[in-house]
This record gives sequence, structure tokens and C-alpha cells, in this order.
Amino acid sequence: MNSRIHNFNAGPAALPLTVLEQIQAELLNFKGSGMSVTEISHRSKWFDQVICDATTRVKRLLKLDNNFHVLFVQGGASMQFAMIPMNLLPEGQSADYVDTGTWSTKAIKEARVQRKTVNVVASSEDKSFSYIPGDISFDRNASYVHITSNNTIKGTQWAHFPDTAGVPLICDMSSDIFGRILDPSPFGLIYAGAQKNLGPAGVTLVIIRQDMLERVPQELPTMLKYTTFAEHNSMFNTPPCFAIYTIELVLKWLEETIGGLEEMDRLNRQKAEFLYQAIDRGQFFAGTAEKHSRSLMNVTFRLPSEELEKQFVQQALENGLGGLKGHRSVGGCRASIYNATPLEAVKALVDFMEEFARKHG
Amino acid sequence: MNSRIHNFNAGPAALPLTVLEQIQAELLNFKGSGMSVTEISHRSKWFDQVICDATTRVKRLLKLDNNFHVLFVQGGASMQFAMIPMNLLPEGQSADYVDTGTWSTKAIKEARVQRKTVNVVASSEDKSFSYIPGDISFDRNASYVHITSNNTIKGTQWAHFPDTAGVPLICDMSSDIFGRILDPSPFGLIYAGAQKNLGPAGVTLVIIRQDMLERVPQELPTMLKYTTFAEHNSMFNTPPCFAIYTIELVLKWLEETIGGLEEMDRLNRQKAEFLYQAIDRGQFFAGTAEKHSRSLMNVTFRLPSEELEKQFVQQALENGLGGLKGHRSVGGCRASIYNATPLEAVKALVDFMEEFARKHG
Repeated sequence: MNSRIHNFNAGPAALPLTVLEQIQAELLNFKGSGMSVTEISHRSKWFDQVICDATTRVKRLLKLDNNFHVLFVQGGASMQFAMIPMNLLPEGQSADYVDTGTWSTKAIKEARVQRKTVNVVASSEDKSFSYIPGDISFDRNASYVHITSNNTIKGTQWAHFPDTAGVPLICDMSSDIFGRILDPSPFGLIYAGAQKNLGPAGVTLVIIRQDMLERVPQELPTMLKYTTFAEHNSMFNTPPCFAIYTIELVLKWLEETIGGLEEMDRLNRQKAEFLYQAIDRGQFFAGTAEKHSRSLMNVTFRLPSEELEKQFVQQALENGLGGLKGHRSVGGCRASIYNATPLEAVKALVDFMEEFARKHG
Repeated sequence: MNSRIHNFNAGPAALPLTVLEQIQAELLNFKGSGMSVTEISHRSKWFDQVICDATTRVKRLLKLDNNFHVLFVQGGASMQFAMIPMNLLPEGQSADYVDTGTWSTKAIKEARVQRKTVNVVASSEDKSFSYIPGDISFDRNASYVHITSNNTIKGTQWAHFPDTAGVPLICDMSSDIFGRILDPSPFGLIYAGAQKNLGPAGVTLVIIRQDMLERVPQELPTMLKYTTFAEHNSMFNTPPCFAIYTIELVLKWLEETIGGLEEMDRLNRQKAEFLYQAIDRGQFFAGTAEKHSRSLMNVTFRLPSEELEKQFVQQALENGLGGLKGHRSVGGCRASIYNATPLEAVKALVDFMEEFARKHG
């Protein structure tokens, strides 16, 4: 293929084309340094500017006050599943987890493997995780409440975050951070693997509130303590420079090209609505998530047969629409429409869906 | 600066120009996928080929048999300082560590913070870590012997690895892996942060022998177990794709452009000899490492005064020679001449050194 496709991958996922073009243009000589961004020292003035600008943009976009620390950690959300209970759940105390499938389930497992006390206060397993539970009773004495804001595989998303009556919320926002307006005040910690809305794989954004940092035990290994990252501006050792640099450019694009989080929110709702309407219009496509729990980021749907789904994914690709196969664990189809996926891509997909339905419906 | 400089950074460090040019050329459309390498799925055929080729090249270059597993882990060598004792040093047993400064010292600390029993069997702290200790007695019952093959800050390197009488050697080769010929047979585990001889920051190469994998305790968090990486081809979760892709290209360059490890070894010795000869030629420059312990990768030296060192670093940069300042912890000057630094760069540096010495000597 000589030209770029419309990329509906679930992650790693599409990046803004202008960001990729900037990376390409300055790859051999970063800001007059005479070196690639991959070759400059992380202690240099060039990289210092990159990481400071990325941090400032995170804080500005999410309206974080100085109570929050912005960290760049390695290991993906999966490493956070382990670090969160290790750092923030002391022996003799318990944490509440809501199980909305896959990633929540893994987070629960990683707390339990450390012999931490986890209460699963709600789960949507009874309906194959096709919805987000409501009316949950939380333990007022829990150390924290853990939720996953968006399930990439099941195509579900919390439309509103639950009221935990002051217990700090900890949230895996890997697949929807910066995708909609956010009030950060109930959150003790937010984390997000970069490879959906933020940048390339290889870095995880962690936003942690000061009172949570104060819980971190002294005796943990250095690289597993949030305090290490907070005290060294994420540079106790060499950080994943290229990934952080790409995040900086993506956030710059979000602020300066898109126009901020309010505008991104509006655009993402428009994209999702457009696609869900196409699914709901006839009998050919069927959404798999319950309507009140539908994700703005990952739109999951089925066709009348697996054979048709296979044809759909294949023919879509031939028409320049890639990444529409559902996750290997659930099958079906999935269109991931993260921030960098433009409305035109969604329109092209809807056109293709309607044509495909006409032919095979 | 409009043109590229000769880059003597200690890490992140120079990459081969042809590698950067290839990344640049295919950044918007990777191998006809219609996507950037940062946008393809890690489960796609495209990335599968990347990681398999990188792994094959590691095995071929180091002549590793099937007893060895090649893993790509996040968190840098600093994370390995913690993972090694966590995975490989059972309670009630001890490990021998040789302290050659900075990185060794940190590795020892991270084992001890986990309340593991560490015996420091040799140290060069008595002379400010300016040499590699010899004639070391190892404990035949130790779980492993840990060494750091090259100290980037002090400019020292093990010329020959010690005989541990069958106790598995564990070696931090972050700053000299693939820099010289290696016999892998005494090693139970080799690890290397990528950002010197291998690629960009953000991935750590771990080579682990089968018998070491069998020591890994079941009850560790998933992302902290070597078995997780070995059993999932380093893709239990999304790996740092871009960094692994760059490693693949660097290893391809090492095999196909340089001509393999024997040729790299020869070239690196030539570069180092050329530079050390310039240092030893008069009284103006003074090497800081003892001669038998001198590093082929990081050449550390002093000038007659700190003021002259400052001028030297500054004027060198004005002449297109960058990254010559010594580590902030020791001062002085340092030229890191990793694999990607060509002989011409070293020649340009020596010319500049001689001119500077004439002017100020």
C-alpha cells in the first residue's frame, strides 16, 4: 500500500499525521542540537524542555492543581496493576475494585498475588462484561476504589464516575484519557498506557495526588516506588525519551490544533454518535455493549455471521479501512476511534458499512 | 546547528546515521502497512517480524544456543537491579557482587532493600573505582555472581570476565554489549539498557539461561517475573515497539554494514587505542582509569585545570564535537565511543585535542 489507511486499531493506534510528520522532519537533527531526539542526553536542556512541556500540557489539559504530580513510568498499565497495591494498599487494609472485565480482572489478580485484601464490590461478569455496573456500595474505610474507565475489548465506558464518598478513586484511563472532559478532584491516582490516546507504546502516564504519595512504603525497590518518580521528575534513570517526546507533540496537537479537551470531547461524541447510529439503523449490525455503557472510544459490533464478519474486515482493509477485527478473545468487529482518528475516517467507515450491509443484508 | 555533530554522549548516545535515515524514510508508512511503525498493532504480522528478527539477530551475534531466551523488558537496568534478586536469589541463599562503582553499587542496594543476602566479594572503592579488581575469591555456593562489565562514569571495563568456578555470572552490559566478542557460556543472565550500543532509551535487553528461569518464584507480580516475558515472547502486554524496532535496525547494521561482532570488536579497539594514545602522548591530558582497566567505550580524562576542561568542552562543541563533559558526579571530560561512533569522529576529536593542547599546554 503506498498511501496511509484509516487506522481503527485498538492500540498501538493512530497518531495525528501532523505529529508523525514533525517527528519525521526533525528526526536527524532535533532543534539544532545536531543530534536525533533519540541521541540527546536525558539530562540535556533539549530533553528537559520536552519533559517539562509534556508535564505542563498534561496539567493544563486536565486542570490539575499543584496537589497532583505527573509521572512517566515504564511497563504499561500492567505494571501499574502491581505498583498500585504495592505502594498504596497497606497491610491490614482493603481496597474496593469494580470488575468491568479483562483489565479490571487483571488489576484484581495483581493485587491478590501480593496477598492484598481486595473486595470486588461490583462486577458485570453476569452479562459477559457488556455493561458498567451502577448503584455500587463502597466501603467507606477502603484504601481506594479501583475502576477501569473504558474497556477496549468489550466496548464499554463509565459515562459518569461513581461517588465514593471521599475514598480516593484510582482509575485506569489507558484507553480514554484526554478523550473527554474530566474533573480530576475525586482521583487519588490516574494511569494510562500511552499507546491509545497519547503516543507510542513504551510509556505510562501516572497522575498521583500528594496524599497518595505519602502512603508509599520506604522499603520498596527504587523503581517500583511512585516517590522515586515524583522526586526525580521521572528521571531517576533514563526515561523512555522518544515516547515522552511524542506525547509532548500529541498534547501540543490536542491543545493547538484541536483546541483543547472541550473540543476533543465534542468531536469524539460526534464521531461515536455517527457510528452508533449507523449500527442501530437496521438489523444488519448489532452493538455488543448495553446502550448506556457504550464506549466513545471502542465501538464493538457483530454482523449476522462470523463468515460475514471475516469478509467485512478483509474488504474494509482493501478499501483502506484497517484494524476492524474484534479482540482475539471475543471476536466480532471493533472500530477504535481514539482522538487521532478524524471524523472523515468515521464517515468513510460508515459509508463502507452501509454499502456492505446493502450487498449482504 | 544545521548539520549533525560528532556525538560523544554517554547515553542516550549516537545511533548509526543510516538507521536514523531508514526510520525517517518509513515513518509514515511501515512496510506498506499504511501506518507508522508506532501505529501498528504489536499483534500484527508486521511487528511480529520486527521482534522475531531482533531476537534472531541477538542470538546470532552472540552465538547463543537454545538454552538462552532473549527478552525485551521495560524500566532500564535500574529495574533489573531489583528484578534479579527478586527472581533469582531465594531466601536463605546469598549472592556475590563485585562493586566497581555507581551501577554496581546501585545493584547491591536494590538487592539489600529486599532483605536479600549480598556478599560484596571485591570492590575498587579504595581508589575511587578507577580499576577493576582482580584475584577475587567467590563463594562456590553463591546463587550467582553479579558484575558490571563497563562503568560509563569511571571509564573502566572488565578486560576478561572472572572465573566463578561454575557459579552463574550475571552481568550488566548496558554500556558495552555488542561492543566486543563475547563467550556467553558462563552467563546465567546478561542485561543491557538499550540507549548506548543498541537503540533508543525505553527498552532493556535481557538474555536469560533456561536454568535461571526455573528459579523464578510463582508468586511474584506478573510484570516482575522473567517467566512472563519468556513465555509470551516479551508480549504479555504491549511492548515498547518503536524501541525494539530501532534495535532491530541497529543489529541489522551491525551484521550487514559493519560485518559482525568480530569486526566491531576490531574497530572499537582501534578507536579506543587511537584516543588513549592521544591522551598518553604528552602531559596535557591524563586518563583517570588505571591502564589495565581502561574502557573501550567510555574514555575518561582530565585537563590541567577545571577552567581548561570547561573551555575544552565548550570549544569542542563549537567545532562540532558534542557530549564531552564528564558525568556530573565526577567532573572532567569523557568521550563515549560506542559502536555507532565512527573512527572519523574519533580522528576529529584527536585533531581537536592536539590543537587545544598546543594552544594551552
